[in-house]
Amino acid sequence: MGAETDIQDITGELNDAVRESGMKNGVVTAFMVGSTGAVTTMEYEPGLKKDIPRALEVFAPSGIPYEHHKTWGDSNGKSHVRSALIGCSLSVPFVDGRLVLGTWQQAVALNLDTSARKREIVLQVLGE
Amino acid sequence: MGAETDIQDITGELNDAVRESGMKNGVVTAFMVGSTGAVTTMEYEPGLKKDIPRALEVFAPSGIPYEHHKTWGDSNGKSHVRSALIGCSLSVPFVDGRLVLGTWQQAVALNLDTSARKREIVLQVLGE
Amino acid sequence: MGAETDIQDITGELNDAVRESGMKNGVVTAFMVGSTGAVTTMEYEPGLKKDIPRALEVFAPSGIPYEHHKTWGDSNGKSHVRSALIGCSLSVPFVDGRLVLGTWQQAVALNLDTSARKREIVLQVLGE
Repeated sequence: MGAETDIQDITGELNDAVRESGMKNGVVTAFMVGSTGAVTTMEYEPGLKKDIPRALEVFAPSGIPYEHHKTWGDSNGKSHVRSALIGCSLSVPFVDGRLVLGTWQQAVALNLDTSARKREIVLQVLGE
Repeated sequence: MGAETDIQDITGELNDAVRESGMKNGVVTAFMVGSTGAVTTMEYEPGLKKDIPRALEVFAPSGIPYEHHKTWGDSNGKSHVRSALIGCSLSVPFVDGRLVLGTWQQAVALNLDTSARKREIVLQVLGE
Repeated sequence: MGAETDIQDITGELNDAVRESGMKNGVVTAFMVGSTGAVTTMEYEPGLKKDIPRALEVFAPSGIPYEHHKTWGDSNGKSHVRSALIGCSLSVPFVDGRLVLGTWQQAVALNLDTSARKREIVLQVLGE
């Protein structure tokens, strides 16, 4: 994933996980592994991919000092703060084999780190 | 639901879903369908129903331009941003048939859109 | 837990719950009981334990009036607002008996109230 709040649509992966489970009714949990990413839902369109990072700048701005930087000599304090506040787990129910997402609602993974990196997302399907 | 961050107490619906499932121990997942709503927990009282929208104005203000508006000619960019940051899924455990919510803690659904609309919330109960 | 955004690492409790369940694959849900706490994940290190509270000051500052204070004569309006926006539920998958948390990622409980208090967190394990 790219740097500076790259957002990826992972709805297809959730659909695949549900289908491969063979289950009809349940919940798929998507979990972002690591402390500088996040998962949530949004309408996945180019405008919001700019609007959301701008909002993240409000509560965890770039270019200010973070105590985290003193601990490791890192420079991604804002990434960590944003991850903790958005959250790393998302639970989406499915009914009759279909995710209950809205028409304009996608499951997304956010790379909030200051450099591009491959992010690992674990999907766990529970139900029957 | 009304416009401008209408907040509704959905605890009763969660309780009903658990009771109707006949299960004793498990988790109920509440999911907000659509990208301009959210679910969370709060003390459901009139003061906080004003305080929370005010906080949402900080990171996704009304009256500023959003890139989202260019995509569709919409005017609810703030609603989408708020939804993505608060989140659309909530998981509440139940034990011995009772939700583990605190005495002053309710499950709530937020309509963050700029106009009143009926919101769909899906409840999925897993357990035994 | 201490006052003013005390953050506690609860990863050990999640690990214990999974192990005691005897399950190999599933999801553990951690739920914060009460409307002035929260749960999330973060790299649990001293710097971020200061950076995250500072970010919370942005959208729910100390020292401003809250409507909540009028309802009960309380003074912890900010605590409630922060709780609702961060969230009280966290779902972490486990695979082959191990939580899928990243190496530098811990499950944490936040006491957001204005005074120290013991917080109750309920863990529910589902899977097989």
